Amino acid sequence: MNFPSKLIEEAVNEISRLPGIGKKTALRLALHLLKQKETVTEELSSALLALRKDIRYCTTCHNVADSGDTCSICLSVRRDKQIICVVEDIPDVLAIENTGQYQGLYHVLGGVISPIQGIGPDELKIESLIQRCAGSGVQEVILALPATMEGDTTSFFISRKLKELNIKVSSIARGIPIGGELEYTDEVTLGRSILTRVNYSSE
Amino acid sequence: MNFPSKLIEEAVNEISRLPGIGKKTALRLALHLLKQKETVTEELSSALLALRKDIRYCTTCHNVADSGDTCSICLSVRRDKQIICVVEDIPDVLAIENTGQYQGLYHVLGGVISPIQGIGPDELKIESLIQRCAGSGVQEVILALPATMEGDTTSFFISRKLKELNIKVSSIARGIPIGGELEYTDEVTLGRSILTRVNYSSE
Repeated sequence: MNFPSKLIEEAVNEISRLPGIGKKTALRLALHLLKQKETVTEELSSALLALRKDIRYCTTCHNVADSGDTCSICLSVRRDKQIICVVEDIPDVLAIENTGQYQGLYHVLGGVISPIQGIGPDELKIESLIQRCAGSGVQEVILALPATMEGDTTSFFISRKLKELNIKVSSIARGIPIGGELEYTDEVTLGRSILTRVNYSSE
Repeated sequence: MNFPSKLIEEAVNEISRLPGIGKKTALRLALHLLKQKETVTEELSSALLALRKDIRYCTTCHNVADSGDTCSICLSVRRDKQIICVVEDIPDVLAIENTGQYQGLYHVLGGVISPIQGIGPDELKIESLIQRCAGSGVQEVILALPATMEGDTTSFFISRKLKELNIKVSSIARGIPIGGELEYTDEVTLGRSILTRVNYSSE
């Protein structure tokens, strides 16, 4: 792809380093910015720079925090401090928050155990989770990790560590999505959903 | 959508003002930047700011120019200065350049005549095209405008203006795309391709 201008070429190169954005989309975005007022580009740049420079992470749960050392969820008096939900990364916190179904705290691991990618337990915030559980009145830890081999390995590792502390450990349910048809569900999910069936009569 | 941080929210708002990027994609991009080194964000911001601040436009053809008042195509000694290809906007220049089939100059109108959007001939670089043709030894003007009503209106308007100057005016061919099947081509295109058939024997 040839560019009529070095400035456009450099902008396209930088934009296309973002995930899911190719050269053609990058060019479309660059030309869009050229058509807008200069303030649009200035506001975009300064928002990105502010995000990257000023962002801080909660020292308790490792979620993002705007200012100070503790995030808004850990600070909130409305949250149930006896339950901790363990997630892989920050988008998972957002996803669970958007359901409106969870009122406890979070713990962001920053990844899952993956020997292939060289990520062991020490690269993740697992030790920090254990210490957090040991020191306070935490009653339950909910593991909300991805339903992959790496996620399951991490769940198993954490649950074994927490056994010693006598804390209830649970995992979010795996099964058929709401609205999902049985015949189009893969065998592993369907098989697991039968094994972990919910007892209606005891509810 | 709730955001855990004002900084993320502001970045997402700015990113999602770009065309074709929604809140979810914007969040994914923002979180991606957070995971990268700070230099990645700095380089992206400065490339965008440089693009918007330092870009200049060719005073002859209104294409982008890196520095000075004339673009690299107008400056090039290899280009045929007797032919001018009229296009709607800068991406069209890129598209034609990438074919490698055209060696003449360009003229970027900056849009097409559209009474509904309030764009008349005076909002476009049409007068500048006429002056350009009148003053120099231009032999042919190729109209490469979109095959829409607005594009056709603009083509008609320009061709009438150029008639007085005694310059040959042509339009890029409309027809069945290379590799296209006849039965899947719309009636208007197919009908037009029969009317504007190319005479093999006279070639």
